[in-house]
Amino acid sequence: MTRLEAVAKIRTDRAYAEELDAADPLAEFRGRFVRDDESLIYLDGNSLGPLPAATEARIAEVVRQEWGAGLVRSWASWIELPRQAGDLIGEHLVGAAPGQVVVCDSTTVNLYKLASAALDARPGRSVIVTDDDNFPTDRYVLAGIAAQRGCELRMIAADMNDGVSEDAVRAAVDERTAVVSLSHVAYRSGALADMAAVTAIAHEAGALMLWDLCHSAGAVPVELDTTGADLAIGCTYKYLNAGPGAPAFLYVRSELQDGMGQPVWGWFGQRDQFTMGPGYDPAPGIDRFLTGTPPIIGIAAVQEGTRLLGEAGLGRLRAKGVALTELLIGLADEWLTPHGFTVASPRDSARRGAHVTLHHPDAWQLSQALIKAGIIGDYRTPDRLRLGPAPIITRFTEVWDALDALRRIAADRSYADVAAERGRVT
Amino acid sequence: MTRLEAVAKIRTDRAYAEELDAADPLAEFRGRFVRDDESLIYLDGNSLGPLPAATEARIAEVVRQEWGAGLVRSWASWIELPRQAGDLIGEHLVGAAPGQVVVCDSTTVNLYKLASAALDARPGRSVIVTDDDNFPTDRYVLAGIAAQRGCELRMIAADMNDGVSEDAVRAAVDERTAVVSLSHVAYRSGALADMAAVTAIAHEAGALMLWDLCHSAGAVPVELDTTGADLAIGCTYKYLNAGPGAPAFLYVRSELQDGMGQPVWGWFGQRDQFTMGPGYDPAPGIDRFLTGTPPIIGIAAVQEGTRLLGEAGLGRLRAKGVALTELLIGLADEWLTPHGFTVASPRDSARRGAHVTLHHPDAWQLSQALIKAGIIGDYRTPDRLRLGPAPIITRFTEVWDALDALRRIAADRSYADVAAERGRVT
Repeated sequence: MTRLEAVAKIRTDRAYAEELDAADPLAEFRGRFVRDDESLIYLDGNSLGPLPAATEARIAEVVRQEWGAGLVRSWASWIELPRQAGDLIGEHLVGAAPGQVVVCDSTTVNLYKLASAALDARPGRSVIVTDDDNFPTDRYVLAGIAAQRGCELRMIAADMNDGVSEDAVRAAVDERTAVVSLSHVAYRSGALADMAAVTAIAHEAGALMLWDLCHSAGAVPVELDTTGADLAIGCTYKYLNAGPGAPAFLYVRSELQDGMGQPVWGWFGQRDQFTMGPGYDPAPGIDRFLTGTPPIIGIAAVQEGTRLLGEAGLGRLRAKGVALTELLIGLADEWLTPHGFTVASPRDSARRGAHVTLHHPDAWQLSQALIKAGIIGDYRTPDRLRLGPAPIITRFTEVWDALDALRRIAADRSYADVAAERGRVT
Repeated sequence: MTRLEAVAKIRTDRAYAEELDAADPLAEFRGRFVRDDESLIYLDGNSLGPLPAATEARIAEVVRQEWGAGLVRSWASWIELPRQAGDLIGEHLVGAAPGQVVVCDSTTVNLYKLASAALDARPGRSVIVTDDDNFPTDRYVLAGIAAQRGCELRMIAADMNDGVSEDAVRAAVDERTAVVSLSHVAYRSGALADMAAVTAIAHEAGALMLWDLCHSAGAVPVELDTTGADLAIGCTYKYLNAGPGAPAFLYVRSELQDGMGQPVWGWFGQRDQFTMGPGYDPAPGIDRFLTGTPPIIGIAAVQEGTRLLGEAGLGRLRAKGVALTELLIGLADEWLTPHGFTVASPRDSARRGAHVTLHHPDAWQLSQALIKAGIIGDYRTPDRLRLGPAPIITRFTEVWDALDALRRIAADRSYADVAAERGRVT
C-alpha cells in the first residue's frame, strides 16, 4: 500500500471512526481489561500496557493460594514457569518453537547476557554493531560490554524518523563483527525493520543477530525461527500487559544453545540445580540462560497477558494496529500539519510498528496539555510526541478524539500555560 | 552462653513450650500472616517466608489502583521505590544509613554486579576469596567472573557444620586479594560469621568485603555501617516474606559509590535517565547500581515485609530466634541422638542464625516423611535436614511438635516407605 492509497482510505469525520469501531473484530477485548475511568484515552500501551482482568485474578490467586497456602511446596510447579511462559510467548507472539524462550530478569540484564554470549560465540571478532537511535538501555549495555572487553561498539547512524536502513547495516558489518544488535521496532519512530533481510546481512558477514523485540512483541508478527534470528530479548510490560517491571524474555535459537555460555552463572542455570554441586555446569538447553530465582508473580502475569494476545490473534492485532495508525497519520496530516506537526514515523504501514510519533518543537508541553485533557501519550526527547494505540484495547474513536483534542490544543495554544510550569514539573 | 548452660535451660515437656509461647512478646504477629491450614507446621520460612496479610492487600492495591487505574502515571511514585524499599531495609534490618541500599534484580545478578565492581575497584589484584560451602549461586557467580576475567577464585575450606573460621579467612587473603565474598549466615549449617572481625581481616589485606545476607537479613542483627562492610547483597523471599522470586537488595557503602562502576550499564543506572542521552553516564550515588526497569509489585511486597519485621523489632526477633533454636537443639539432643541424628549447626547461639540443621544418613527420606506428617522443613545435600523456625510466626509448641513427630518417625522407621519412592519423586 502506498502512502497516497493509505491516506486516501481514511475519512476525517467521527462517524468514520465509529464505523471502524463497529466493524472491529477485537472490540470485545476492551472489556477484558480493568478500566477505571471510561473517559480516559490511553495511548501509552506501548510504554505500560493496561491491566487485564484475568491478570488481576491470577495474581491474587498466585499470592493467596500458591504462595499463601501452598508455601514452598508450590515450587514444584513454579520451577517450570520460566519455560512455560517462554513457550507461550514463542507460540503466540514471536514464532519460536518450544524450548527457545524463557521469561526471566529484565530486558537490560537479558541483553547483557546474550550480547556477552554472542561475543564469546564469535572468538576473534571484537565489534558489536548497533545504531545511535537504539533504545538507551541497549546502547548503554552494549557500550558497557565493549568497554569491559576492549571491543568496538560501532554505531550505525539511524534516521530518527525512519529507522535503520539495510544499506546502513550492510555498510557497518564486516569480518570483525561478532554481533549485530538492533530493535525490531524503533522505540522513538516506530520504524519496523525487515527481520529476515537484516538477519541475512548479519549472517553474510558471519555475525550473530540479536533482536530487541520490546516494541514489536505482541504488536507486529515476529518470526524468529523462520527469519533465522539467532538471539532476541523483549519486554512484557508494554504490549504484553504484564505490569510495571514485569520480567523480560529471551530467545536463543536451539542449535546455538549448547554451544553458548552466558556471563551470569546462577543456580537456576545449573544442571541438576538442587544437587548444588561444587562447580558450575550449565544446564542443557535454554535453561542455562536463567540466572537467579525467577519472579513468580511477574511470570504468572506474563502468561495471562500472552494468553490474551494469543486469543485475540496476532494477525488481527496487526491488522488493527495498521488501521489505527493509518487513521492517526491521516488525521495528523489533515489537522495537525497547519499547526507545525510532522509525522515522524514511517508512512508505509509495512515498515511501521503499532505506534506513531509526531514531531513538534513544543512536544513536551503538548504532551502535558494532553494529559490535562485526559489523553495519555508519551513525550520522547527531544521534540517528539509518541502515541501508541495498543490494538487490543484502543478504539478508533479514541484516536479520533485524541487527534481532535490535539488540534484544538495546538490551535488555541493553551499548552503555552504548561510551558511556564515545566521547571516545576521536571 | 555455653552449650551446657543452653541445654540446661530447656525442659522437654510440652508444657515448657506452651509456657514459652505464653510469654512470647511476638505472639500476636502470627495473626498478621495469612494462614490457610492451622495444623501445618512450617519450618521453612528461611526458604520461602509466609504471606503477610498486609502484603496480600498491598499487592492487590498496587495491581488494581496503581497499575490498573493509575497506569503509566504511577511511575511518578514508582520511580522512587527501589531506594525507598532499600532505605527501609537499611533502617530496620541491616544497619545502613539512607542512600546505600536499593532493591532490584535477583541475588544472583546483584552478586555479579558487586563482585565485578569490587574487582574493578581493586586494580592490580586478581583474587576472589570465598568458601567451598557457600551457597551454590555465590560459588557459581564468582567462578564465572573469575573465568571471564582470568582471576583466581580461592576457596576457603569451610566446616559444613560450623562455617568459616576467622583463621581460615586470614590464611586465605593476601596482597593479591581484591574481594572476600562470604555468607553472613551459612545456608546449610546456619553458622553466623562475626561480620566486624571478618571484615577487618579483609581490610587488613587491602581487600573489599562483600557479604551475602540471604540467611541473615531479618533474622539476626546486621550492622553494615558500623562493621565497616563495603558491599552486601541479600534476599527478600526468606525472612523478609516478600514472596517467591521477589527482588533482592544490594548495599554499597556511601564512600565507595561514586568511585565504583558495575558491569550492567542499564538505563535505570543512568544520570538523568529520561534525557536518554547518547553515552552512559552513571547516576551519582546508589542509583548507579540499578540496571533495568525495577519490578514494582515485588518491591511493594518487600516494603510490606520489611515494615512488619521493623514493627516486631530485630532485637525481639533475634531473641526469639535464639530461644527457638535452643529449644530445637535441646530436644534434638535429648530425643534424636539415639536415632542417629547429630546437630550440624553451631551450638553457641551467638554463632548461629535462625535455623538449625540436623545430620542423618536418611535426611532426604526423613524430610519427605515429615511433609507427609504436615511438617515442612528442608532437605539439603547430602544428608541434612534443615529446620528454620522463622521467629516472627513460629510457635515454640510447633518446634516441640515437629521434633516430637520426628522422633516418632525415626523410631518406627516409617520413613523407609518413602525411601522406596525416591526414584519417582526426584
